[in-house]
Amino acid sequence: MSNKVAVLVAGSWGTALASVLAANHPNVIIWSRNSEQVQEINEKHMNSRYLPDADLPPNLKATTDMEEAVSGAGAVLIVAPSKAMREVARSFKAYWHKDMLCIHATKGFETETMKRMSTVISEELGCKEGDLVVLSGPSHAEEVVRRCPTTVVVASLNQKAAAAAQDLFMNADFRVYTNRDMLGVELAGALKNIIALGAGMSDGLGYGDNAKAALLTRGLAEMTRIGVEMGANPLTFSGLAGIGDLVVTATSRHSRNWRAGSMLGQGTKLDEVLGSMGMVVEGIRTTKAVHTISEKYGVQMPIAAQLYQVLFEDKDPKVAVEALMGRDPKTEMESMKLETWEQWHS
Amino acid sequence: MSNKVAVLVAGSWGTALASVLAANHPNVIIWSRNSEQVQEINEKHMNSRYLPDADLPPNLKATTDMEEAVSGAGAVLIVAPSKAMREVARSFKAYWHKDMLCIHATKGFETETMKRMSTVISEELGCKEGDLVVLSGPSHAEEVVRRCPTTVVVASLNQKAAAAAQDLFMNADFRVYTNRDMLGVELAGALKNIIALGAGMSDGLGYGDNAKAALLTRGLAEMTRIGVEMGANPLTFSGLAGIGDLVVTATSRHSRNWRAGSMLGQGTKLDEVLGSMGMVVEGIRTTKAVHTISEKYGVQMPIAAQLYQVLFEDKDPKVAVEALMGRDPKTEMESMKLETWEQWHS
Repeated sequence: MSNKVAVLVAGSWGTALASVLAANHPNVIIWSRNSEQVQEINEKHMNSRYLPDADLPPNLKATTDMEEAVSGAGAVLIVAPSKAMREVARSFKAYWHKDMLCIHATKGFETETMKRMSTVISEELGCKEGDLVVLSGPSHAEEVVRRCPTTVVVASLNQKAAAAAQDLFMNADFRVYTNRDMLGVELAGALKNIIALGAGMSDGLGYGDNAKAALLTRGLAEMTRIGVEMGANPLTFSGLAGIGDLVVTATSRHSRNWRAGSMLGQGTKLDEVLGSMGMVVEGIRTTKAVHTISEKYGVQMPIAAQLYQVLFEDKDPKVAVEALMGRDPKTEMESMKLETWEQWHS
Repeated sequence: MSNKVAVLVAGSWGTALASVLAANHPNVIIWSRNSEQVQEINEKHMNSRYLPDADLPPNLKATTDMEEAVSGAGAVLIVAPSKAMREVARSFKAYWHKDMLCIHATKGFETETMKRMSTVISEELGCKEGDLVVLSGPSHAEEVVRRCPTTVVVASLNQKAAAAAQDLFMNADFRVYTNRDMLGVELAGALKNIIALGAGMSDGLGYGDNAKAALLTRGLAEMTRIGVEMGANPLTFSGLAGIGDLVVTATSRHSRNWRAGSMLGQGTKLDEVLGSMGMVVEGIRTTKAVHTISEKYGVQMPIAAQLYQVLFEDKDPKVAVEALMGRDPKTEMESMKLETWEQWHS
């Protein structure tokens, strides 16, 4: 495979991952529509809008020209925002070749369709979804560019593609595990935003560490429950893309989901929260989508259901917590359907 | 069953659980050897040594007389420190009756033998270990007495006993789940101290959220690996006694394990750390024990192994982290033996 690696686009996570790649490979190029950003990366080795404090590797080049970025690349990493993923994949299509290793590192669903990112990309490229690779895990971009120790998972149905992605990214500061449960890794990355929102709400209500740990753990149980019902491996949710990312997102005050939840817990109304954030809060969108999905699959997701009522039916957050605490007595493994287990571990 | 409930002994966790029981039941009595403490609980409804800011329920009585405490009780909760568990169970033996519901809420192993608490209690009482119940989960005692929302798990091979314990403790602020994997719940409560120590060390080294989330997640993977090998259910480690308790312990600066780890990460030597703590650091003892156990079972526990070398072989913590990051490429589910899965989910 060609040793040229292309990265689309130059947000904070794309730039951070590009800097990991540039530490490992001489020929890495990042694509952006913004010519000022491209000039800054090429001349000052900085991306001041997204990673203001980071010095980027001098061998990381940038371009506004999609053809220059991807033609002849052995591997292409796509890190477009979820709402722009389809359009970016479409612009990439003309230069795509089936021998290119295609990896994406975008969390969340497509807004209108609630499709996973690998579905969106495979529809646009016309490739097999199972040959794509998803990269996920607990990883603040700011820490990755500072070379703080970080671990992620790369998942694909194609084990050769997953191993190639592992080899591409792995170095002394950035440790990469493989997993063949692409579905579980993508679901975990989207669903965890709901629980991060709930954790923020708990903090906003003034509850303590016990309540937050309860939310994370029981949130993990309901993420696993719906994931397994959809065909994922339960242990994926206990891995880097699941509980790992959940811990980072739910305990970070930088997380938009946590901040939105915290404001709701303090009594701010949804309109006002959205107004003050000035951008999409993934967990709010995902809570709405999951309301439909859990009904379709007949899976109980009590935390997501109470959040839905707080967000869209004006329920008092305190009353929602009382409802969660006052449910009938349960076992920890309640309704955990495990028919899919054998599929994953045979 | 008699509605009298006895609690042995009056440390912070025993007193907090006694206050939950006293909110649910009129007749709750706590036993302590310390007559001043007993007098303070009876007269001032306080236990100022262990829970200085808490008002205890007036119906919670205390006594120094074991016979008065337990004779005729329908349920007995034992929360002795692990090193005193055998002796307390022995004093209790004379008044024990096989119809009493016996629950313990002590984490960790017996020092000399590394036996689990339920093994120690059953040996002393001469009862079936499987009829005992263990209570565990993410729960700072200080928050429980303030009635902050808290969730725990009660586990027993005897499902009637587990359900009775659930019924005994559950109320609007204290939600109780059952689990039949007593072994997994007890192992998780002890093993998590190793990972909390590692999380403290990571913070002491100045690493970030990514590194800490990596330690928690990969630590959970190796706790699960050894637990499954010993016969536990993998999902127990992803539950309240496992990841739930791990999140609370590893992110709390009040945790002795976290503090000891943090000092080690900053370069303080083990002798000095132990001297300044002035008390047992459970995670250090457990790291030593697990070194032997993992060799006996042939299970790889890379984080515990590196911690062992830092603690007992004077390895530089930074070099230990480099060794962890530089291991061969792995899959997330590496060496996860799952023969026991069917035993738990058939």
